[in-house]
Amino acid sequence: MEIKFQNYELLLRHKFGISYHSRLSTPAVIIKLNQGEYEGYGEASLPPYLGETQDSVISFLNRIKLRDITSFNDLIDLSKEINSVSINDYAAKASINIAMHDLYGKISNQSCYALYGIEKSPLLFTSYTIGIDSPEMIIKKIEEAKSYKILKIKLGTENDRKILELIRECTDKPLYVDANQGWKDKYSAQEFVNYLAENNVLLVEQPFPINNYEDSAWLSERSPLPIIADESIQTIRDIDWAKNCFTGINIKLMKCGGITEAYKMIKKGREANLKIMLGCMTESSCAISAAIQLSALVDYADLDGNLLILNDPFTCNTVKDGQLKLPDGNGLGIIPDKNKLTI
Amino acid sequence: MEIKFQNYELLLRHKFGISYHSRLSTPAVIIKLNQGEYEGYGEASLPPYLGETQDSVISFLNRIKLRDITSFNDLIDLSKEINSVSINDYAAKASINIAMHDLYGKISNQSCYALYGIEKSPLLFTSYTIGIDSPEMIIKKIEEAKSYKILKIKLGTENDRKILELIRECTDKPLYVDANQGWKDKYSAQEFVNYLAENNVLLVEQPFPINNYEDSAWLSERSPLPIIADESIQTIRDIDWAKNCFTGINIKLMKCGGITEAYKMIKKGREANLKIMLGCMTESSCAISAAIQLSALVDYADLDGNLLILNDPFTCNTVKDGQLKLPDGNGLGIIPDKNKLTI
Repeated sequence: MEIKFQNYELLLRHKFGISYHSRLSTPAVIIKLNQGEYEGYGEASLPPYLGETQDSVISFLNRIKLRDITSFNDLIDLSKEINSVSINDYAAKASINIAMHDLYGKISNQSCYALYGIEKSPLLFTSYTIGIDSPEMIIKKIEEAKSYKILKIKLGTENDRKILELIRECTDKPLYVDANQGWKDKYSAQEFVNYLAENNVLLVEQPFPINNYEDSAWLSERSPLPIIADESIQTIRDIDWAKNCFTGINIKLMKCGGITEAYKMIKKGREANLKIMLGCMTESSCAISAAIQLSALVDYADLDGNLLILNDPFTCNTVKDGQLKLPDGNGLGIIPDKNKLTI
Repeated sequence: MEIKFQNYELLLRHKFGISYHSRLSTPAVIIKLNQGEYEGYGEASLPPYLGETQDSVISFLNRIKLRDITSFNDLIDLSKEINSVSINDYAAKASINIAMHDLYGKISNQSCYALYGIEKSPLLFTSYTIGIDSPEMIIKKIEEAKSYKILKIKLGTENDRKILELIRECTDKPLYVDANQGWKDKYSAQEFVNYLAENNVLLVEQPFPINNYEDSAWLSERSPLPIIADESIQTIRDIDWAKNCFTGINIKLMKCGGITEAYKMIKKGREANLKIMLGCMTESSCAISAAIQLSALVDYADLDGNLLILNDPFTCNTVKDGQLKLPDGNGLGIIPDKNKLTI
C-alpha cells in the first residue's frame, strides 16, 4: 500500500463565526492510498481547536507503517496498529482510516456502510449551520438554507435571545442550538433552555466550557432538551464519564479517529443510553461521505461541512432536499476533482 | 500578564530507545510569563507520540487570552479558560499552567506544593530509565545509574527475557518494566509477568497497544504485579474506564495539561482505587520540578527526564542519591540559565 498526501485549504462560503472565534478557511490534508489498481481517499480536517496542524498530520503519516490489506479484518488490524503510534493525532488517524475504507470498499466491490452490515434505508435530515454573524447576514443565510429542514444555530454570545428572536422572525423550522462553551451561569442557562424548548429547539450542544462537568450534569438533569457534549468529549474512552454529565454526545470522525472508532462509539454510547449525534468539522465530501456511511445508526446528524465550502475537491451527492443520501458507488462513492488535486 | 516563548531542543545524553522508536533529542517550548516584577517559567515537552509540535504549541499560545492573577483561585479560573480554547494541546496547556504556578508562587512567596496544601516530607525514590540499546550500552547505562535505587527498563521487544537476564547479571535493584505497547500475546505476557515478579520487578507499564482494553483488563486481573496504563490514558476523563482495565495509571503533566489537572487526576484516581505513578517525558528541570511538587501524593515516581539531558536550561536540584527533593525557593525553585535562554 502506498500513500500520497496534499495540504488543502478548505475555503468557506461565509465567514464561520462561533462563540469565541471566526475564520474564513480551514486547513486540511487530503490523502490517497494505492494498492494495486485501486485507490482510496481520506481527509484530515484541522480546525484550530483540535490542536492538529498540516505539519503534525504529515509528521504522523510519515511515522506509520502501511501494508496491503486483503480483508476487512486486515483493515481493522492495521487501523489499530496505526492508532498505537500516537496518543493523539485523531484527525490524522481518521484520514488513514477513511482512506482505507474507501480503498477496501473498492477492492471488495461494496459501499463502506455495507462493511459494517448497515442496510440502505432512508436517512436523517441534516441540520444546516448558521454561524454567528450580523443580523443582515443571518437573515441572508437562513434564506440560503431554505432547502434544509433543520437549522443549527451558533449561540454562546451576550445576544443569544436576540439572535433567536431574529431567527424566529424568519423561520419556524426546528433548530439545534450550539453554545460552543459560551454560557457562563447555570441558572440563566436553565431559564434559557426552557425558553428554547418552547420555541421548537430540539437540542442544545456544549453549553459550558470543556471541563465544567458539574454545571453540565446539573443542566442535563433539569433540561427539557437533550444536552449534547461536543468539545467535552472526544473518543470512546469518554463515554463512561460523559454518561454522568450529558444526555448525548456529538461524535465526529476527526475527534475520534475515523469510521471504525465512530462505529464503536455509537455502539458504546447506545449501551450507555446516550443520544447520539454525528457531527463534522468544515470538511470536504470525502470525510462527510465517510460519516454518512454510519448515519443510519444515530439520532441526529449535523453533516453539512461540505455544503459550506467553495472548493470541494470531490464530487458527491451527500444530501437531497435536506435529507442525507448514501452515495452511490463502492467505497465512499466520491469522485476526485483532478483540477483541484495534485495527488 | 505577558508571555514570551522560545523553541528549545532538549539533547539526550544517550539515544532514547523504546519498543517502536529511537531518537537523540526532544523538541520543547520554554515559556516565560511576566506580571509586574515577577516572572514564571513553563515548558511544553513534545515527544512525537504526543502529537504536538513547537508550531502547534505556539499557535495555541497565540490564541489564549492572559490577564493578571492575584490569587490562587484566579490562577485556577484562568487555567480553566485557557483549557477551553482547544480539545487537545495538553502540553501547550501544561506549559502555561506550570508557568502560572511558578509565577504565582513567587508573587505569594511560597512553593508550588504549598499552594495545594501539601506538606514538606521525605519523598519517593525516582526510577532512572534504561532505554533499549546494545548489551554493551545497557551495561554502561546501569553503571552510570549507580546512585539510583530503582531502574526503569524499556522492554516490548523480541528479546525481553534476554535483556532482563543481562540486567540481572549487573544489578539486583528493584525494577519497573515499561513495555511501551510492545507485547502481542496475553498468555505469553502473563507468563513473563510472573517471571518478572520473581525477579524483583515492581510493576509493568503499558503491556499492550493503546486501544487493546480487553487484554489489558485480562492481564491486570491475573498479574501479581500492578499493570500501569501510560499511553492508554491521558486526562482525568480516562479514569472512569481505566479503573476497569488497569491497576494503576501513569500521570504526566504533558499528557493531562499541567499541575492542576494532575492534582485532580491523583485525587480521582485514588478514589477509584488506582495506583498512581507520576511520570514525565524528556523534560528540563522546569517541568520536572513542577511534577515533584505533587510527588508526595503518589505511589511511584519516574521523574528522571532532566537527568537524561545534556542542555538543561534551568538549574535545580531535583534528586539526591536517587531520592526526589522538593526544590528550595518560591514557585518551582528553578534558576534559568541565561546562557541558554533568550527569553
